[in-house]
Amino acid sequence: MILVMKRGVSESLIQNMVARVEEMGLKAHIITGTERTVIAAVGEERGKSKEKLESCEGVEKVLPILAPYKVASKETKPEPTVVRALDLAMGGGNVGIIAGPCSVESEEQIILAAKQVKEAGATGLRGGAFKPRTSPYSFQGLKELGLQFLAAAREETGLAVVTEVMTPEHVEMVANYADVLQIGARNMQNYHLLQAVGEVRKPVLLKRGASASMEEFLLAAEYILDQGNQEVVLCERGIRTFETHTRFTLPLASVAYLHERTHLPVVIDPSHGTGIASLVPSMSVAAVAAGADGLIIEVHPDPSKAMSDGAQTLTPEVFAATIAQCRRVADALGYELH
Amino acid sequence: MILVMKRGVSESLIQNMVARVEEMGLKAHIITGTERTVIAAVGEERGKSKEKLESCEGVEKVLPILAPYKVASKETKPEPTVVRALDLAMGGGNVGIIAGPCSVESEEQIILAAKQVKEAGATGLRGGAFKPRTSPYSFQGLKELGLQFLAAAREETGLAVVTEVMTPEHVEMVANYADVLQIGARNMQNYHLLQAVGEVRKPVLLKRGASASMEEFLLAAEYILDQGNQEVVLCERGIRTFETHTRFTLPLASVAYLHERTHLPVVIDPSHGTGIASLVPSMSVAAVAAGADGLIIEVHPDPSKAMSDGAQTLTPEVFAATIAQCRRVADALGYELH
Amino acid sequence: MILVMKRGVSESLIQNMVARVEEMGLKAHIITGTERTVIAAVGEERGKSKEKLESCEGVEKVLPILAPYKVASKETKPEPTVVRALDLAMGGGNVGIIAGPCSVESEEQIILAAKQVKEAGATGLRGGAFKPRTSPYSFQGLKELGLQFLAAAREETGLAVVTEVMTPEHVEMVANYADVLQIGARNMQNYHLLQAVGEVRKPVLLKRGASASMEEFLLAAEYILDQGNQEVVLCERGIRTFETHTRFTLPLASVAYLHERTHLPVVIDPSHGTGIASLVPSMSVAAVAAGADGLIIEVHPDPSKAMSDGAQTLTPEVFAATIAQCRRVADALGYELH
Amino acid sequence: MILVMKRGVSESLIQNMVARVEEMGLKAHIITGTERTVIAAVGEERGKSKEKLESCEGVEKVLPILAPYKVASKETKPEPTVVRALDLAMGGGNVGIIAGPCSVESEEQIILAAKQVKEAGATGLRGGAFKPRTSPYSFQGLKELGLQFLAAAREETGLAVVTEVMTPEHVEMVANYADVLQIGARNMQNYHLLQAVGEVRKPVLLKRGASASMEEFLLAAEYILDQGNQEVVLCERGIRTFETHTRFTLPLASVAYLHERTHLPVVIDPSHGTGIASLVPSMSVAAVAAGADGLIIEVHPDPSKAMSDGAQTLTPEVFAATIAQCRRVADALGYELH
Repeated sequence: MILVMKRGVSESLIQNMVARVEEMGLKAHIITGTERTVIAAVGEERGKSKEKLESCEGVEKVLPILAPYKVASKETKPEPTVVRALDLAMGGGNVGIIAGPCSVESEEQIILAAKQVKEAGATGLRGGAFKPRTSPYSFQGLKELGLQFLAAAREETGLAVVTEVMTPEHVEMVANYADVLQIGARNMQNYHLLQAVGEVRKPVLLKRGASASMEEFLLAAEYILDQGNQEVVLCERGIRTFETHTRFTLPLASVAYLHERTHLPVVIDPSHGTGIASLVPSMSVAAVAAGADGLIIEVHPDPSKAMSDGAQTLTPEVFAATIAQCRRVADALGYELH
Repeated sequence: MILVMKRGVSESLIQNMVARVEEMGLKAHIITGTERTVIAAVGEERGKSKEKLESCEGVEKVLPILAPYKVASKETKPEPTVVRALDLAMGGGNVGIIAGPCSVESEEQIILAAKQVKEAGATGLRGGAFKPRTSPYSFQGLKELGLQFLAAAREETGLAVVTEVMTPEHVEMVANYADVLQIGARNMQNYHLLQAVGEVRKPVLLKRGASASMEEFLLAAEYILDQGNQEVVLCERGIRTFETHTRFTLPLASVAYLHERTHLPVVIDPSHGTGIASLVPSMSVAAVAAGADGLIIEVHPDPSKAMSDGAQTLTPEVFAATIAQCRRVADALGYELH
Repeated sequence: MILVMKRGVSESLIQNMVARVEEMGLKAHIITGTERTVIAAVGEERGKSKEKLESCEGVEKVLPILAPYKVASKETKPEPTVVRALDLAMGGGNVGIIAGPCSVESEEQIILAAKQVKEAGATGLRGGAFKPRTSPYSFQGLKELGLQFLAAAREETGLAVVTEVMTPEHVEMVANYADVLQIGARNMQNYHLLQAVGEVRKPVLLKRGASASMEEFLLAAEYILDQGNQEVVLCERGIRTFETHTRFTLPLASVAYLHERTHLPVVIDPSHGTGIASLVPSMSVAAVAAGADGLIIEVHPDPSKAMSDGAQTLTPEVFAATIAQCRRVADALGYELH
Repeated sequence: MILVMKRGVSESLIQNMVARVEEMGLKAHIITGTERTVIAAVGEERGKSKEKLESCEGVEKVLPILAPYKVASKETKPEPTVVRALDLAMGGGNVGIIAGPCSVESEEQIILAAKQVKEAGATGLRGGAFKPRTSPYSFQGLKELGLQFLAAAREETGLAVVTEVMTPEHVEMVANYADVLQIGARNMQNYHLLQAVGEVRKPVLLKRGASASMEEFLLAAEYILDQGNQEVVLCERGIRTFETHTRFTLPLASVAYLHERTHLPVVIDPSHGTGIASLVPSMSVAAVAAGADGLIIEVHPDPSKAMSDGAQTLTPEVFAATIAQCRRVADALGYELH
């Protein structure tokens, strides 16, 4: 259920209602909109009296939440959520640009990459320190050292650091360095990890699993939201289909589909979504035109020497030209790119 | 092989080379570019002397065609093909807009729809007279009567008529009324039908099969080109994947992928590609941004009363707003919408 | 609707009811079971009086057909249909074995192959005379000459000839030579072709399209049945999925799924279903265990010299060993292999 | 590289070679076959001298491992691995039967289920205590209490307990109760979890991810093997495709495909693989015929009251009849079911 509170209701009345909801055995999530506050009351509702809540002081009305994802649902919060980290902003007309190499390889590499992508217009820096690799014999990342290099790059450039965390016991460590915690596609249904990042107060960028349905994707976000972390960014990075000419198939229709159902921002990853560098510019521009709230793009000072994902990585020059095109489209459609 | 002729070579020398190619047991396709003429010599090349041809008068050089699709390949013709029918133009920076109802239902309906989509900026009119339907018990179209109504709508509006032909024996009849012959997704590998439309001298819009690979798609086009019809438009209309929230998954990356491999124009069908009217505007704008050479969109004077595909059909008002957005993006990127 | 006639009702009463059904604007299909005759009355039923029909002489009861496929539905005919051609029998506990090369290459080749597969236990001979090929430049089959060679092979061995027809205008010619007409996967929704083979009185083996849903598959069969041809065999030959280690993914669950919904026999094609010869034996045995009503397997006297599909083709020796295994399983489960 | 040791070589010579391999910076896995011992030397091989190793005492020859999965590869160990837990045996002609409810619901329920499946012929008991659920609001399992009930059921019946572990920090606890640790499909690429179960000395049943390629599946097993745990069972449980009539598409061809590449046993899960109870018997029998080394089937004393997965769960009676059919097929083909 959603308890829509009256305008200008006091904090103590809100806390009062939270207590009553919890007494009923439900979990209460306070969602503060620009106009009003609502309380999402989530849990087994059978036998719970909607009427009793509706008659409480400060409550305007009580509505059911029909979607299986409760806190993520647009029913609970119709206005778009804007997620911010330093100068990076995603959602509500803000198109955030996150770029950088697949893996952090050295301090020099990540600082150079950071400067290059910032120069081209990015406000977020991506780079993997913990790398989920298909083979146990592949490079697994620089681990905490990589996180330190990312922090150094932020120091130099002011870019917000977006980096992956792979297992619950690393969440605290990664959160110490990162501005946005990334959950990779392979971990979209690693529920203990989702709960662990839900307990942190840093934004989470959640990648869609390669064969996840939209409902599974939103319910994965719900695992994070349910722990009290309201800053979740959904990232469409392509699905696995019979098509093999591209690494994955990137369904841009996800942007409009998700915008109809959730207030959370939706970011596109055209690098994994295609797997081919020459297709990334076209799909980046298309993503902005489709209404995406951000882009996350692989850029390396020299893609031919990248330790991972070189084939889908842009040079700084092509990245700059791509962002220039994106900016033209954003301007034409009234979005703000940054 | 491709025989690249010298600049300004005479027609008789070209015909001479065609004769020599045919003597060798190969098929000759003359492709006239803006700068030069090339002759694509297609067939079993083993034991054929490239050197002998290279030494002929008027021949500058002889190159192999590596792609399995020969005439469709960009190796054969690097510059983009522009396909035109009345005011409709697709390719080379021209973004053609084709719109109209799924099925022709009556003379009034199709004329009204034609006026409405023309008003909004379309130059092509779609509408099915022969309808491939999943069930034998569903409405199968008005058949020749529907073609007559389409011709009447062209008479009224000047729009180019794009309509489907389903079987070889109907090709002549449909070609009498239509400006562009459409091959539906289910018939993409109906090779006798492809050959039959290859013998006609009208443009063909070839829809990608729902599970066709890119190579199969281009080779289907090659069946048409191989019969001498050079005016083929490729239409990406979505593929079948595990995603069921949309009717099909629309991979806009196909545009850039195909542009790298073929000179043929690539048109997007966001109506079948999503199956949901509310997602069509976003995907139309994205398609233009991705570099598509055209859009084919289902529009009906009253979608709620459409005899087929109502759920994915735009109202004239939403269509007009969508085209206005597309125009803004086309202007920003230097494409010409018409 | 289904009109269930009383036991032992006279032919004239049946014809009488057919006439009444047709007067109501419905199509009547007489389905003669071992116990009773039913009349499937198909078409727009709104406003048609079930009660009036129920009160007619000879009618026991009138039932609705809920499935969208009417004549194919098990509601219409609960007992399994057995399709026979010479010694080949499929359905109702009969497991028919059809084998032979992908393409008819010469009279010697097809006669040798026929003798070899007969020796191993086959009762049907497959072999393509008209070949749907992805590329217009690939071998397209020996055409009518190939049909003549197939007829010669039948003359020698007594095997029933199963061969593909690709376009409506060839139906009569192919039906002159073949015992079973095959519709290929690419033509599963070539509705004019389905209607054309529906008018013939020879069994039709209908292959599932590579991305067809089960409902689309059954409705394609319905196009044939609706023309009056009751002898349709469904062939599961694999679907296109993200898996590329096999050519297609072969879902054997289709057998039980279809047996729950239709009385038509279900045959498995493990050759196309896997695309890899070494996987064919295991999947053939599994198909029999799953309850399949037949197998259609590619076998060539020398697969390494096959003009098409060599990689998925068995040698006669491996085929014989495979059939021996299948026979053991059929015996264990009470099916009759032949 | 694989170091094939001479027959009858002493333990100290083997340990000597392990030391030399490790000195070279490679990881050594000792694989003891029935005939010989081999040492798989895994890691970055560039610049490592194969010749030097080949000349060592006790070494017969040194071979490269071409597959990306080294320890899992049949090149490393051509004979099949048999994984055993109590009376449950999988591999090398042994077909292990694991059955039980989706979730452990109570002590009575799991003990009753255990007795019923044992009676029908099972040697392994499945049952989830930690349940990965799509929604955070669904029943998440009885957790450690569920593990205790499973242990009680083993006490009563002697069945080996197969149960899921979801996160690294639970591995020790689950291993205290379970005989086989199950890794669910959603966690197939949860690499920290794979490494954690690799450190335990209990068999691991690894489920294929719903969109994992075969290579990804084998490399996930390799993560476990690489930690020194040699007892890995691969479980094909269906892939996500466009087919929605079944919950997943179950590709039985995986059995033969994997048997060609790995020595690890391959088990089939027809319950998740179809999602429909009425299809499970047919697919169970087919799996045995296909050569599967085991089955894992959902059975509940009363499926209509199951807290999860009821639609795909067999009654004890149908399960018993299914196993009887499986036994007939196993007998016919020379496999031992237990």
